[in-house]
Amino acid sequence: MFEGDKTMELLKIVAIVRNQVLENIEGRLVDMRLKGISVTKVKGYGEYANFFNPDWMVTHIKIEIFTEQAKVDEIVAAIMDIAHTGMAGDGIVAVLPVKKLYRIRTKSEVLPKNI
Amino acid sequence: MFEGDKTMELLKIVAIVRNQVLENIEGRLVDMRLKGISVTKVKGYGEYANFFNPDWMVTHIKIEIFTEQAKVDEIVAAIMDIAHTGMAGDGIVAVLPVKKLYRIRTKSEVLPKNI
Amino acid sequence: MFEGDKTMELLKIVAIVRNQVLENIEGRLVDMRLKGISVTKVKGYGEYANFFNPDWMVTHIKIEIFTEQAKVDEIVAAIMDIAHTGMAGDGIVAVLPVKKLYRIRTKSEVLPKNI
Repeated sequence: MFEGDKTMELLKIVAIVRNQVLENIEGRLVDMRLKGISVTKVKGYGEYANFFNPDWMVTHIKIEIFTEQAKVDEIVAAIMDIAHTGMAGDGIVAVLPVKKLYRIRTKSEVLPKNI
Repeated sequence: MFEGDKTMELLKIVAIVRNQVLENIEGRLVDMRLKGISVTKVKGYGEYANFFNPDWMVTHIKIEIFTEQAKVDEIVAAIMDIAHTGMAGDGIVAVLPVKKLYRIRTKSEVLPKNI
Repeated sequence: MFEGDKTMELLKIVAIVRNQVLENIEGRLVDMRLKGISVTKVKGYGEYANFFNPDWMVTHIKIEIFTEQAKVDEIVAAIMDIAHTGMAGDGIVAVLPVKKLYRIRTKSEVLPKNI
């Protein structure tokens, strides 16, 4: 599906990070003039989950961003810089393909170059 | 991945809309006999986010729908019709590819023609 | 996009299940040594939604798992085994493509063989 100009793909970034880093990440993403971030509380466990430890479930934050290929590396690097502690539970960042994106305000399709 | 009959693709629609429009959208989607809508509260900001404005974070609603190609345009149009105010913060609708879908009630794979 | 070795694809599993089965599913997934499960409360309706029934909205749980092709069938089967009652509202399991995955603890890309 990613035929053609690789800089013109729509993508969804999903980051699952510790609660404590959300405010700093939001600030950075706003500085980067990103439009359309959504944030959800999730319950999760990380790399060293231990079912016999009653504390293994911790609340994390899921951040979802719709963007395009040319901006992905910078966004992923910014999130990892802020969210990294080096300890288990730091979370993950995933990049998923997106087929179409529409802006409801204008009722129009958003092309990668205009996101 | 979308080789073959373009009408037979499984897709996921993700809509992020204002709280106030949820009830009307749900009603419309039920009228369209859609199966399997899920709704989550999200915190987000829209196109004109201003980090220096303490009110820039507003609660939106995320609607997720699994469907197939032939129904996507109608669903997206219905959501945009209801959710559109023309002001910043109206939200977005995204369409993502899906590889497989299973219905737990029947423990069987859902093919696009049967969704 | 899924050219090459089909066992080396990154994938995202999204399961929407009844509240009551969450604990059993979490236990099974931990037993399977899965890393990185996240859980969100969602409001949804299933196959036989009836707009005229005030109870048609029920709270379900959304489980999200990042994994790779070789593990998907086992995970989907485990979730369906535990979540299946045979009644409407059992939920769905979807498998979505993932382009890239990064582990924040190590600030490195996660390859399918190392997930």
